[in-house]
Amino acid sequence: MLPIISIVGASNSGKTTFLEKLIPELVSRGYRVGAVKHDAHGFEMDREGKDTWRLRRAGAGVVAISSADQLASIRRTEAEMSLQEIAGRFFWTEDILITEGFKRAHFPKIEVFRAAVEPKPICGQGDNLIAIVSDDTVDAQVPKFSFADPRGVAEFIENRYLKDRKKRKMLLHLDDKPVPMNDFAEDFVVKGIKGMLSALRGYDNPKTISILIRLGEDD
Amino acid sequence: MLPIISIVGASNSGKTTFLEKLIPELVSRGYRVGAVKHDAHGFEMDREGKDTWRLRRAGAGVVAISSADQLASIRRTEAEMSLQEIAGRFFWTEDILITEGFKRAHFPKIEVFRAAVEPKPICGQGDNLIAIVSDDTVDAQVPKFSFADPRGVAEFIENRYLKDRKKRKMLLHLDDKPVPMNDFAEDFVVKGIKGMLSALRGYDNPKTISILIRLGEDD
Repeated sequence: MLPIISIVGASNSGKTTFLEKLIPELVSRGYRVGAVKHDAHGFEMDREGKDTWRLRRAGAGVVAISSADQLASIRRTEAEMSLQEIAGRFFWTEDILITEGFKRAHFPKIEVFRAAVEPKPICGQGDNLIAIVSDDTVDAQVPKFSFADPRGVAEFIENRYLKDRKKRKMLLHLDDKPVPMNDFAEDFVVKGIKGMLSALRGYDNPKTISILIRLGEDD
Repeated sequence: MLPIISIVGASNSGKTTFLEKLIPELVSRGYRVGAVKHDAHGFEMDREGKDTWRLRRAGAGVVAISSADQLASIRRTEAEMSLQEIAGRFFWTEDILITEGFKRAHFPKIEVFRAAVEPKPICGQGDNLIAIVSDDTVDAQVPKFSFADPRGVAEFIENRYLKDRKKRKMLLHLDDKPVPMNDFAEDFVVKGIKGMLSALRGYDNPKTISILIRLGEDD
């Protein structure tokens, strides 16, 4: 699995500002970083009147716009996608996914805390808090870093989540639901798939294999 | 493969306006429609100063924003992604993909033509033109529909691409490059994967199976 770390905190605690310093630290260490922002209020990605907006309004469930250097997509969803599914679907090339928000998901969390904004940290026991970023006095059982130390946080994340993560990983979704596998099953399936595909022309020691199967009624 | 149809034409010929009428016709027939717009000039999906913009500027290669009813993502690319890859990556739930532009890709094309804008159609022989939408006199070997007949075009697309498409399909990417398979190989791989996965808890006649494998150096 792609490591996922959530940066949480009260509104206006400085999450985005801290992320603007943390992401470059991770990038400079050679990691490809993805970011996901949680938006509780519904966002407007495209603007009224733009072509993408018009195609969505016409009923397209997914609209993408592609140019030489970027690809954007907007997908209508019936319920909020889980972080795990977002990670599997949209971040296939990244080494780590940093989220802004998503306090309720069960991924490791770093809380950004300013006493001027909120009397005490929003994360309590059972919230999987791994560190706090704050310049105030905080009573916490986890490492604390100052706002001026994004490098320390990057090092902490690197040591804990990036150095010894498994070399190989497999993500399986059945009907869009992630299905976890134990090491034995994963090894069996990966070797089986590699064996079958290795007979194909075009198979030349790939680093990633991506497969999507839609099953029909006769299958 | 997901059927892909490109709506092409000169600038200002009315592609988006026609798509705004065609998409609802396909949706009303029960198809899930995806749309891709080609943008030659580089687009601005998020606005300067917004959080997603700040996270991208900080170095995140992919940024997503998620709410209860939509999921948007912006991905930096080194070269323009192929339509085939875009289809496989971003449109896993759709029945048909309609593109605006992408004249140079080799998918079936419908040209929107207005003599007031361009002296003659931009598609020539070898362009895989399957129909023309125009209210002008055009010398063409393909069916012609008027701008007021999006229903006729939807019916034409449905009969030709949606009615007898294969029930099952498998999309395989190795290192992000699509790898085509013949029916025998596809059947072999699909049955092999189904067989391996059927032993898993959580496997209960899924309609879609999605697998992403990253191979390590020891594999």
